[in-house]
Amino acid sequence: MKKILILNGPNLNLQGTRDVKVYGSTTFDDCIASLRERYEGRAEFDYFQSNIEGELIDAVHASVGRYDGIVFNAGGYTHTSVALRDAVSAVETPVVEVHISSILAREEFRHTSMLAPVAKGSIMGFGLDSYRLGVEALLD
Amino acid sequence: MKKILILNGPNLNLQGTRDVKVYGSTTFDDCIASLRERYEGRAEFDYFQSNIEGELIDAVHASVGRYDGIVFNAGGYTHTSVALRDAVSAVETPVVEVHISSILAREEFRHTSMLAPVAKGSIMGFGLDSYRLGVEALLD
Amino acid sequence: MKKILILNGPNLNLQGTRDVKVYGSTTFDDCIASLRERYEGRAEFDYFQSNIEGELIDAVHASVGRYDGIVFNAGGYTHTSVALRDAVSAVETPVVEVHISSILAREEFRHTSMLAPVAKGSIMGFGLDSYRLGVEALLD
Amino acid sequence: MKKILILNGPNLNLQGTRDVKVYGSTTFDDCIASLRERYEGRAEFDYFQSNIEGELIDAVHASVGRYDGIVFNAGGYTHTSVALRDAVSAVETPVVEVHISSILAREEFRHTSMLAPVAKGSIMGFGLDSYRLGVEALLD
Amino acid sequence: MKKILILNGPNLNLQGTRDVKVYGSTTFDDCIASLRERYEGRAEFDYFQSNIEGELIDAVHASVGRYDGIVFNAGGYTHTSVALRDAVSAVETPVVEVHISSILAREEFRHTSMLAPVAKGSIMGFGLDSYRLGVEALLD
Amino acid sequence: MKKILILNGPNLNLQGTRDVKVYGSTTFDDCIASLRERYEGRAEFDYFQSNIEGELIDAVHASVGRYDGIVFNAGGYTHTSVALRDAVSAVETPVVEVHISSILAREEFRHTSMLAPVAKGSIMGFGLDSYRLGVEALLD
Amino acid sequence: MKKILILNGPNLNLQGTRDVKVYGSTTFDDCIASLRERYEGRAEFDYFQSNIEGELIDAVHASVGRYDGIVFNAGGYTHTSVALRDAVSAVETPVVEVHISSILAREEFRHTSMLAPVAKGSIMGFGLDSYRLGVEALLD
Amino acid sequence: MKKILILNGPNLNLQGTRDVKVYGSTTFDDCIASLRERYEGRAEFDYFQSNIEGELIDAVHASVGRYDGIVFNAGGYTHTSVALRDAVSAVETPVVEVHISSILAREEFRHTSMLAPVAKGSIMGFGLDSYRLGVEALLD
Amino acid sequence: MKKILILNGPNLNLQGTRDVKVYGSTTFDDCIASLRERYEGRAEFDYFQSNIEGELIDAVHASVGRYDGIVFNAGGYTHTSVALRDAVSAVETPVVEVHISSILAREEFRHTSMLAPVAKGSIMGFGLDSYRLGVEALLD
Amino acid sequence: MKKILILNGPNLNLQGTRDVKVYGSTTFDDCIASLRERYEGRAEFDYFQSNIEGELIDAVHASVGRYDGIVFNAGGYTHTSVALRDAVSAVETPVVEVHISSILAREEFRHTSMLAPVAKGSIMGFGLDSYRLGVEALLD
Amino acid sequence: MKKILILNGPNLNLQGTRDVKVYGSTTFDDCIASLRERYEGRAEFDYFQSNIEGELIDAVHASVGRYDGIVFNAGGYTHTSVALRDAVSAVETPVVEVHISSILAREEFRHTSMLAPVAKGSIMGFGLDSYRLGVEALLD
Amino acid sequence: MKKILILNGPNLNLQGTRDVKVYGSTTFDDCIASLRERYEGRAEFDYFQSNIEGELIDAVHASVGRYDGIVFNAGGYTHTSVALRDAVSAVETPVVEVHISSILAREEFRHTSMLAPVAKGSIMGFGLDSYRLGVEALLD
Repeated sequence: MKKILILNGPNLNLQGTRDVKVYGSTTFDDCIASLRERYEGRAEFDYFQSNIEGELIDAVHASVGRYDGIVFNAGGYTHTSVALRDAVSAVETPVVEVHISSILAREEFRHTSMLAPVAKGSIMGFGLDSYRLGVEALLD
Repeated sequence: MKKILILNGPNLNLQGTRDVKVYGSTTFDDCIASLRERYEGRAEFDYFQSNIEGELIDAVHASVGRYDGIVFNAGGYTHTSVALRDAVSAVETPVVEVHISSILAREEFRHTSMLAPVAKGSIMGFGLDSYRLGVEALLD
Repeated sequence: MKKILILNGPNLNLQGTRDVKVYGSTTFDDCIASLRERYEGRAEFDYFQSNIEGELIDAVHASVGRYDGIVFNAGGYTHTSVALRDAVSAVETPVVEVHISSILAREEFRHTSMLAPVAKGSIMGFGLDSYRLGVEALLD
Repeated sequence: MKKILILNGPNLNLQGTRDVKVYGSTTFDDCIASLRERYEGRAEFDYFQSNIEGELIDAVHASVGRYDGIVFNAGGYTHTSVALRDAVSAVETPVVEVHISSILAREEFRHTSMLAPVAKGSIMGFGLDSYRLGVEALLD
Repeated sequence: MKKILILNGPNLNLQGTRDVKVYGSTTFDDCIASLRERYEGRAEFDYFQSNIEGELIDAVHASVGRYDGIVFNAGGYTHTSVALRDAVSAVETPVVEVHISSILAREEFRHTSMLAPVAKGSIMGFGLDSYRLGVEALLD
Repeated sequence: MKKILILNGPNLNLQGTRDVKVYGSTTFDDCIASLRERYEGRAEFDYFQSNIEGELIDAVHASVGRYDGIVFNAGGYTHTSVALRDAVSAVETPVVEVHISSILAREEFRHTSMLAPVAKGSIMGFGLDSYRLGVEALLD
Repeated sequence: MKKILILNGPNLNLQGTRDVKVYGSTTFDDCIASLRERYEGRAEFDYFQSNIEGELIDAVHASVGRYDGIVFNAGGYTHTSVALRDAVSAVETPVVEVHISSILAREEFRHTSMLAPVAKGSIMGFGLDSYRLGVEALLD
Repeated sequence: MKKILILNGPNLNLQGTRDVKVYGSTTFDDCIASLRERYEGRAEFDYFQSNIEGELIDAVHASVGRYDGIVFNAGGYTHTSVALRDAVSAVETPVVEVHISSILAREEFRHTSMLAPVAKGSIMGFGLDSYRLGVEALLD
Repeated sequence: MKKILILNGPNLNLQGTRDVKVYGSTTFDDCIASLRERYEGRAEFDYFQSNIEGELIDAVHASVGRYDGIVFNAGGYTHTSVALRDAVSAVETPVVEVHISSILAREEFRHTSMLAPVAKGSIMGFGLDSYRLGVEALLD
Repeated sequence: MKKILILNGPNLNLQGTRDVKVYGSTTFDDCIASLRERYEGRAEFDYFQSNIEGELIDAVHASVGRYDGIVFNAGGYTHTSVALRDAVSAVETPVVEVHISSILAREEFRHTSMLAPVAKGSIMGFGLDSYRLGVEALLD
Repeated sequence: MKKILILNGPNLNLQGTRDVKVYGSTTFDDCIASLRERYEGRAEFDYFQSNIEGELIDAVHASVGRYDGIVFNAGGYTHTSVALRDAVSAVETPVVEVHISSILAREEFRHTSMLAPVAKGSIMGFGLDSYRLGVEALLD
Repeated sequence: MKKILILNGPNLNLQGTRDVKVYGSTTFDDCIASLRERYEGRAEFDYFQSNIEGELIDAVHASVGRYDGIVFNAGGYTHTSVALRDAVSAVETPVVEVHISSILAREEFRHTSMLAPVAKGSIMGFGLDSYRLGVEALLD
């Protein structure tokens, strides 16, 4: 059984309570619960969210030897954080980059991902289902 | 049962026979066969590949009413083809963009996707498994 | 009496059946019929559409000695095709570039026209009426 | 019967007397006369030219309720004037942008049009005939 | 004896009949005949031209095991085609890129070559003699 | 008691009569009246508007010795006018730059202000209330 | 009576003790005290400063339902933080962006504001008085 | 005897009264007087200054047949005015571009001159002496 | 005797345990120990590392009056952090910027240093020896 | 009497013998002779030309205390040489930059001058007369 | 019999002794000897190499009337030297630009050639064989 | 004992006699003397300076087998010289790049170093002490 960390960056703590029309009312509590149910016996999930870039770096560092993979949505830090990129690149834990919306379909400053070149792969644009696809990618 | 078109652009006909160390010896025949087995009873698959941009556009047009979704790797046309983008945008068939490698991790001229803004979502970097994840995204 | 080729590039075969609110339900069959009626005795019209860049190049080449002018909407190839530009530049047939919408009013990647510098002139933004204005420009 | 304003920007007062080989000896007096003759009973024409950006803005403002359309060649202000763009955008009078030569075929600083995104449409490259085509576009 | 494919991209079918002052009246029939005569006993030549990007890709693919080298003038596709670059890169047939004129001496959009980084070498600016030099490069 | 000039650039003469949903029906007559009432005994106001760049320069020049400050909305000239910048920089009258909307939230060509580096300060995005805040800034 | 949060980003804790000639010896303690006196009975003020980007995001999130507005100087994070922009955009609390100096008058890397497009409005260049003007903007 | 027009653009009317330490207290009245004295019997001088771009265009147009040359400092319009460039290019009067300071030594937005490519030549950086050198250039 | 702070940014806590072939197995514990031995009697060293940008800012602020200099490797924050730059610029403690590898020899997004313009000087490319050279620079 | 060095950079040794239609048959021998005659009693001239960047730097260094000014045409080094710029900036000898043609009217790579920001002033576009105007500028 | 100059720029004196795995152990002595043998009776060869840009310019100038052509590898000066470009452009000797490797396949700063637009043609990527092909191009 | 070459590029021969307030009155004679005294018994120093790019290349080439390292300040050639970069890259002598001031803190055209990617490391901003630190880096 694989151990997987769902790691969320800035503002994702608001999911489910803000802009409900766009993002739906599913919170990450629901999302994790649904993943646990679906992958019962195949995977265990931990969840961590922080708005602080350095705490996300700490979480990536701490994953070594504890998780078989990270499904990581770095939110707004995706586009600018050299430090997060270096963190992902420094650990051997496989990291799958996910995004709720397609970053290439939004404002130009979101078109770059610092993480994509060092991640195992990237999945974006499928809403919260991007997380499940990230789990799929780690399990296979 | 859903009908899904696996649509491949230029040079992907060489998969399995070229650069075997990097891309493996799995051909798309193998890949489609494996998808058919895995999703038996849940999805049917057609496969089409062309090196000609306009034939890919034709295939996207022809999907209307015949397929419930397209898993589309546009290869080298991904980065430059306004015409393919317009085709994807013009039809209602959901299109999932997939790439074998992560386009953001390669040469700079591959960092742009004309399709991402009009696709349902994008998946890249997981090797041939990107196609399976694309199917997953369409089935859910 | 002048012989005029109405030449359409990628995705324009969908006109009249897609996005009816924006583009209207007039097809190119209707459009050509209406041109034939309006310019009866003054001009004859042929119509050719292809999604394949090279077939459009072929059509431009083949126009020599057969048409007195081309009204050409190159669609998505407008913005990137050096080859089409070279084709238009190589023949003596006058080519009027037309666009249904104003390319300068849309996404930035549509702001360039490879054809404008080698065309007789350009007309854009008037819907299907751009084609009639293109004919007017050739007849005078 | 429609009322149409032919509006010319900087340096167009020299038409017909300068660079006769390139621009011909037709002045705008001749041009307007010819339009009046051709569209007799269908359209009335007023003509205004100014080298002063602000007077062109005034003319666009003053068109409301007085003209059914403007055929506007903003000359050198086309490429830089945010203020003229805002003026065209602020009034409901339909404005057709015209240019004697094709701005996309000249120096790079002429490749942008501030007006195109807010105009009804654009016509360029047909010499003085661009004005007639502009009138055609307004009458149909 | 080596087998060499002379491969020509878009618009090169017009050579010898257009713009005779610039390009001369030598057609590719003449050019190939002259190469056959000069290299008799040392090399055999096939000739293929297409205006369709995908057919050029097909030709590059099909060269494997059949030709000892390709002398390739990709015409207008040189500057934009990621797909052709991938094709050249995927096959082991040595490809010499040639151009009739010097692409670095023309319009800025011609200054880039997608093929140069994956070709064996590049030769440009010598008129039709560029093809002979390409053959020389393959024979030595 | 301070003397303040409210100076408006191109198209702002239309305020209150155009696009009422967005800009409201308050005209600058109303706005000035309301400022006079609010700051009675503390400030006197003059109002000048012109669509002509050079007349705005003249107004800035003429302010010396006559006004204690200018609240200046340069409209579309904000983004391109080196000449207006030089005028503001040349006089000692404090100039507060104001904008009805936030120029950084609109089209990219509006993201630059030629005036900001030479103005006392800038206020934008508060609708007509930007003018009152400009007055506040001058009075304190 | 309105509740307003004065929110300060990195390095603003040094105000009043560093570079006194430029910034003056007024600390934010003085500044808040002066605001409380001036707006007594009209507004209450809280003050929070952090050098940590994520804590500022937390503060923006926590403002919902507790404050009627935020006067926010994001300091050096203004120019690069997509995450702060997303935070401001996600909450309904009105946020007024303020800067002590004019960011458009300083080094080029300070010319962009990630916050301006999502803030209620922006005020810059008036020294500490920018904060008072920000309060004014929220009260009216 | 040659007739020369000294033509000054925006803000140059302030010369001699502003920023005396930098620009000196010499006004253009003094400057013209000194030129008249120095070139007595060799040249006659007229002087015109305007802050309005269109009036400068008018002055350039009106020079034909009346002046043997123009010494032209277009001030802030130098860097942006396509219209002034077109005016200078349209007349046969030789135009010498002058600047008091070196435009290449100032802010980056002043590094371009729209006039230089169409002027007879350019002189900059010599203070008011640039005007005398401009006259010298026209007389020889 | 001087007091020196060795200050390390994100990911540098992994030194010695990751990518041993490239970075060696020397940890910062070893490195500090070696510095203490070498500079005994000449300098005292404190060491602080954080992955959190704001804590590094705090450390820079807190250095005033406590350290004679900082040897600072800001890691991935080097290239993007305006806030750290402002912190270094705000304190009088001399700061020497060091990097293990040469930032100009790596990916393009690492070619900029926000700190270099406000640091006393920069040293890069000498592996961990860069730290010793930084100390040398502070002692002389 | 002033001592002036006429300093010429690369390729200017060919003047008078190449491209006679464009540059005329006047050599620099003639040009210097004519300057000596014209300014007899007012100025003495030395002439030095080199194709070697470093020898031009040497000549600029050696001018100190020997010349009252340099009229310097750095030819092709104008656009790229930081070293020449530093040389001109390091000496107190006034340097007037001259060019035979207008660098802003030629290819884009000639639009920059490294020397202009550190020269006393710049004169360009007047043919060999630019040198005389340079002398004028030094004498006044 | 033709006289040909083989002209080599900076660092090419090291050929054959450095980086033998990449460049081979053939020196230019060998290369010239082999050319002399191959083209005996058809061409004579001189060889000149310099690391000094100005000496290369001198060599190009001196070629007039002495050589029927130059095979020129300008090494690192290829990408930046306006002066060498002007030299090649100023003489009538045909110059063939050669490069050992393909400059378009290396670092981005090598992608430009200042010489290509003024050379007879360019050959690159064939190792030392590029020189022989250059000779071929001159002989035909 | 190590043999070290101190190598200086253009304009550094002026050190100590120009701009004494900024650069001090220490000449390189003093600097070398001080290095010889400090490192007596540990290192021997030679000194070479040239304003000629090619002579610096020669010096780098000649270092092989004669020096254990070079402390190299390439002055203005740092930012543009591909040829010097190739020279440093071609030899095995370790080269430490030094600069008196911080190149990243000056004009934008100085922000690039062609040498940094091929040097052993870079040291900048410490005045003449940068040279001593360069020696330290070579000795350890």
